[in-house]
Amino acid sequence: MPEFLSLVTPDEALEILFNAVNPEVKSEIVQTEKALGKVTTEDILSPQNLPDFKRSTVDGYAVLAKETYGAGETLPAYLTIKDEVPMGGEPDFSLISQECALIHTGGMLPRDADAVIMLEDTQILESGKIEVFRAVAKGENVIEVGEDVSAGEIIIPKGTRLRPAEIGGLMALGLTSIGTAIPPVIGILSSGDEIVPPSQKTKPGEVRDINSYTLAGLIKNLGGEVTHYGIIADSRDEMLKALEKAHQECDHLIVTAGSSASTRDLTAEIMNILGDPGVLVHGISIKPGKPTIFAVSGEVLEYLSITIL
Amino acid sequence: MPEFLSLVTPDEALEILFNAVNPEVKSEIVQTEKALGKVTTEDILSPQNLPDFKRSTVDGYAVLAKETYGAGETLPAYLTIKDEVPMGGEPDFSLISQECALIHTGGMLPRDADAVIMLEDTQILESGKIEVFRAVAKGENVIEVGEDVSAGEIIIPKGTRLRPAEIGGLMALGLTSIGTAIPPVIGILSSGDEIVPPSQKTKPGEVRDINSYTLAGLIKNLGGEVTHYGIIADSRDEMLKALEKAHQECDHLIVTAGSSASTRDLTAEIMNILGDPGVLVHGISIKPGKPTIFAVSGEVLEYLSITIL
Repeated sequence: MPEFLSLVTPDEALEILFNAVNPEVKSEIVQTEKALGKVTTEDILSPQNLPDFKRSTVDGYAVLAKETYGAGETLPAYLTIKDEVPMGGEPDFSLISQECALIHTGGMLPRDADAVIMLEDTQILESGKIEVFRAVAKGENVIEVGEDVSAGEIIIPKGTRLRPAEIGGLMALGLTSIGTAIPPVIGILSSGDEIVPPSQKTKPGEVRDINSYTLAGLIKNLGGEVTHYGIIADSRDEMLKALEKAHQECDHLIVTAGSSASTRDLTAEIMNILGDPGVLVHGISIKPGKPTIFAVSGEVLEYLSITIL
Repeated sequence: MPEFLSLVTPDEALEILFNAVNPEVKSEIVQTEKALGKVTTEDILSPQNLPDFKRSTVDGYAVLAKETYGAGETLPAYLTIKDEVPMGGEPDFSLISQECALIHTGGMLPRDADAVIMLEDTQILESGKIEVFRAVAKGENVIEVGEDVSAGEIIIPKGTRLRPAEIGGLMALGLTSIGTAIPPVIGILSSGDEIVPPSQKTKPGEVRDINSYTLAGLIKNLGGEVTHYGIIADSRDEMLKALEKAHQECDHLIVTAGSSASTRDLTAEIMNILGDPGVLVHGISIKPGKPTIFAVSGEVLEYLSITIL
């Protein structure tokens, strides 16, 4: 009657499981807009430089940096406003000595301009000139071509779960669809004569099915899909029938079992029937959860999860 | 031309915004099973004790604790196995002196039993008796009635975002539907002459709309619903028309605007037209994001979010 499980540590248990399986990750093309939380199946390379033109990071005046050297509060430099950079377009002019151009944040620098001086560091004069009260270095307040991302660079490695920032980054590069992993389908089966559905009033000795719903929530939060198989009667025939059906329909099965030793032995026996190699781990040195089972039957991974009291 | 924003700190900005609004949280009844990530609108009270019967936390024998006092490896106590506790049912017997009953994890203790001795600490004899090698205290390996939750106790306070554990807890108590907040609808509008849809090839000076999609992801992760209004042309009439429509359809609006000073001024002007009190904050001491606007028009909250370069 006493149980003699040969316990392994949680790390050993996972190692045994992962060594026994090499699950194939199936990929599908999805719209990037709908890929939040999904996982990439390939490295994603940037198709272009970003930005692909020299941009201003401030509102101000595009200048030749050297024309501002030595400028200060008491000795401003004077530059002539040649034109205004249109937003969303390419300036159709270049700058020559003593010239500047009004530019907005995000605007494209005119040819030959190599820095931007902030509005706050200038004063506009009636003559169509500005006073510049501060020197700027070459490249100041400018994002260079490819400074964010270079063409060909890996921007998102294979196996990355996509957060809002990655969705935005993909959109910035025009990658409006990408390959992501098809979520695994996880079947959840409950068993145990004492278990009743949550909607049911309990009689003495009965408890409601909790684990199916807690596990389903954890799986959904991790991006998996759940199929519920309900509460299976605690008999060999019923369990075998239910597990065989679930085995055909799912990538992983979780049996959240009645916690008596006989139920566990029954579950282990059926996992061995479903396919090779069968039960790999039976007993993990954790508490609660000691009688946990890991099994692999064909390509399906199975787990016995124990009601935690 | 230089901008003179009166900057406030991020904390001040939020305080100003929250003081100006008292948004009504609308509630709807949802199935608990589908409530993952939703937010409760009322305190949830337990309708019952949990467990509602004395349960064993181990596989073993239900006993009268005092009958084991003094038992040890060299001086076992002897008890007669009276019966086995059925899983999911109420034992139809009680224990008297020198008796014990086989019980499985989660099983209901027979009347008068007050402790459970683990299988590992016993040995079964052919006579239908067991040897007990260890004393157990009253209540050992037993969960008492109401030990997890007492009837009437607040189990989930109002305003809680439901995680898998809470979903399981609600199911344990038979609460298969609950009141949760109807998610706010957040409208996202882009503007800026330099912004093009992600699917479009960019010309020099143009950039793709990133913010709409990053923001949408952040909102979805927080449980909100998103309505996209696309990219609005950078004109007063177009902006006003689009914002008026969105204002009628949404609870919050985010304008992710072109970053030039003129666009920001235009956005602020339109937010003031939409309703009182209008713009509350224009300029926050953060970088990037300094020209951020917070506005409230009637019951709708509006934000100007700035392209981050």
